[in-house]
Amino acid sequence: MVYLTRVEHFNAAHKLFNPAWSREQNDEVFGKCANDNWHGHNYELFVTVKGIPDGDTGFVMDVKRLSTLIKDRVLEKLDHRNLNLDTEEFRHLNPTAENIAVVIWNRLRPHVEAQLALSVTLYETERNFVEYHG
Amino acid sequence: MVYLTRVEHFNAAHKLFNPAWSREQNDEVFGKCANDNWHGHNYELFVTVKGIPDGDTGFVMDVKRLSTLIKDRVLEKLDHRNLNLDTEEFRHLNPTAENIAVVIWNRLRPHVEAQLALSVTLYETERNFVEYHG
Amino acid sequence: MVYLTRVEHFNAAHKLFNPAWSREQNDEVFGKCANDNWHGHNYELFVTVKGIPDGDTGFVMDVKRLSTLIKDRVLEKLDHRNLNLDTEEFRHLNPTAENIAVVIWNRLRPHVEAQLALSVTLYETERNFVEYHG
Amino acid sequence: MVYLTRVEHFNAAHKLFNPAWSREQNDEVFGKCANDNWHGHNYELFVTVKGIPDGDTGFVMDVKRLSTLIKDRVLEKLDHRNLNLDTEEFRHLNPTAENIAVVIWNRLRPHVEAQLALSVTLYETERNFVEYHG
Amino acid sequence: MVYLTRVEHFNAAHKLFNPAWSREQNDEVFGKCANDNWHGHNYELFVTVKGIPDGDTGFVMDVKRLSTLIKDRVLEKLDHRNLNLDTEEFRHLNPTAENIAVVIWNRLRPHVEAQLALSVTLYETERNFVEYHG
Amino acid sequence: MVYLTRVEHFNAAHKLFNPAWSREQNDEVFGKCANDNWHGHNYELFVTVKGIPDGDTGFVMDVKRLSTLIKDRVLEKLDHRNLNLDTEEFRHLNPTAENIAVVIWNRLRPHVEAQLALSVTLYETERNFVEYHG
Repeated sequence: MVYLTRVEHFNAAHKLFNPAWSREQNDEVFGKCANDNWHGHNYELFVTVKGIPDGDTGFVMDVKRLSTLIKDRVLEKLDHRNLNLDTEEFRHLNPTAENIAVVIWNRLRPHVEAQLALSVTLYETERNFVEYHG
Repeated sequence: MVYLTRVEHFNAAHKLFNPAWSREQNDEVFGKCANDNWHGHNYELFVTVKGIPDGDTGFVMDVKRLSTLIKDRVLEKLDHRNLNLDTEEFRHLNPTAENIAVVIWNRLRPHVEAQLALSVTLYETERNFVEYHG
Repeated sequence: MVYLTRVEHFNAAHKLFNPAWSREQNDEVFGKCANDNWHGHNYELFVTVKGIPDGDTGFVMDVKRLSTLIKDRVLEKLDHRNLNLDTEEFRHLNPTAENIAVVIWNRLRPHVEAQLALSVTLYETERNFVEYHG
Repeated sequence: MVYLTRVEHFNAAHKLFNPAWSREQNDEVFGKCANDNWHGHNYELFVTVKGIPDGDTGFVMDVKRLSTLIKDRVLEKLDHRNLNLDTEEFRHLNPTAENIAVVIWNRLRPHVEAQLALSVTLYETERNFVEYHG
Repeated sequence: MVYLTRVEHFNAAHKLFNPAWSREQNDEVFGKCANDNWHGHNYELFVTVKGIPDGDTGFVMDVKRLSTLIKDRVLEKLDHRNLNLDTEEFRHLNPTAENIAVVIWNRLRPHVEAQLALSVTLYETERNFVEYHG
Repeated sequence: MVYLTRVEHFNAAHKLFNPAWSREQNDEVFGKCANDNWHGHNYELFVTVKGIPDGDTGFVMDVKRLSTLIKDRVLEKLDHRNLNLDTEEFRHLNPTAENIAVVIWNRLRPHVEAQLALSVTLYETERNFVEYHG
């Protein structure tokens, strides 16, 4: 079994906010990340598939196809967008790095062959990142 | 003469938009960057001063003081903000990387000793960056 | 379950030395790292917690709190110090990257909620790093 | 148990090609990577061993010895070479990142103490990498 | 005046060789880089233009146009190629980093507006790079 | 004219201290960097030469020779050392990044051909660096 990873990136605006809470509670928990007018990030996205290299190609999966899949299923919806306003999944879900990673995994899982394990690593900044294996 | 550089970063939302133009013209020129609901970036900011190291300290400038100056004069206004909505200078100026670098240089110049040359380098993404020397 | 990682860094002096050995044996095993007058590193520290994102916040753990915890429990004791001379744990323990990672994990474990798994990755240089899961 | 990783690199030419296929099939599957006259990469190689730090040294393994081992067993054969033409293993095996990682792991495994687990991570570019654990 | 830089990359095979010299002299001067069967690199290419930001757009130059220009005029000819065999300019010119940077600058100069200064920085590896200003 | 840069690194201990000052004044000016027992850094060193590529080789200077020169004249004296105690130049000179860069430039200048311009860039951390052109 070999793990194959493709790295892509997207640039998006977001804010962290729980509408069930008061303004004060949001500010206390989310600090500057709750700024009403949004802020944003260069997200670095690592998508990893795990499987047995094919005997004819030597590929776990064609990395160009993996890249296209990420572009079609993830970047098309998230890149140069406002995650809270423009992305269906975050209408009622706080777009923390943790939740974005889970949303991305869920978007990709149906399109990756079932025998390949899938995981997603997402860097929100160089110093904060998350990883999700399903 | 020695150049001394301090690197800081900030995360902000913005969009590129010329209000004197039609929607179509904005989309044509600025593409995805004109998305109405904003997008965002992790901006990496390099501030360079050039001067003669002091005989007593060996410093062109105390790098902790340079870092504090950048935080007080730049990050305080730009970090976790919407550049178009929350920053005075960009009310009527398009927040391209070029213009942001010029705004940052103008914010810093009065607070750096006159005998020190000043320049600003700003990375909008790992693959796009600008540099301004005044 | 999601993994959340925070990256911090510290700068420290150290030397590798076994006082039970002769000078020659230390030089043979540790080479330049046994230099009597110390040398030093920029250590990059990755601290990872693994758990279920909270339903109200979307956080496995508040990354600002994780950062503060690392600063209070680790950096406060190791940053800008001589590991051999200034840090209690290394009075009788060789400060190899392996041992430093274990010491850091032990310092953090009591302060991270029991239901969160904890691991530590430590870069001594860009080309040498270690990882410890407890 | 602690994981210890050493990073090395090598520069090599290769092409992806299945001699059992037609020119058209090779171009369709491997695209530009099937260019007859080769192309090349700066490969970044991460070799990880996992074990218990020695009580006398604090080392899982002496990282200088690990570095020497990688140079002798891997870089000596792959660095500044044409993988397809100059390396025995790829005479009849497509030098994809997946296959190169497996070949490197096989070259190293006999020379690393049996009680140490071994894994290999190989970056073909900054955006494509693979990992193999045996 | 603001400098704007776009970063692109390409992967290519090459060897360093002076056909006017003996095999021995080539080996002595170029070492492993003279390997008959080629080796290769991930080249990182920084292209910088210097000018006055446009009043309507805030751009020194549209960075998407700069990226397209690099792709059309440079990457199209060099990416996934053998520089010595597949690129006209290196039929009789040694493809050192220095010469590649000059060739790239010459390919781009006619297509960048005359009032914009142009420079090219080329990383052959993370540790070796060159810069050319025309 | 082409600029050629070689990157090397060294790991050293140092402290910032002016012996003509009181303890209090040193602490006030140099903060944690004045820690009596030293601290340390991974220094990244960029050495740049500027000249005309040779017609026979295509080299401004053989980068292997530049690397060897840096190792012999700089790393041999600074790597895995205590800059204050083990390096002649810093017996009476504060080893700030600025002063280290000047010392390195002075060590290299006599050994680089007179017609090649020389500059030195030194990273003390990823966020603090200096540059010296003589």
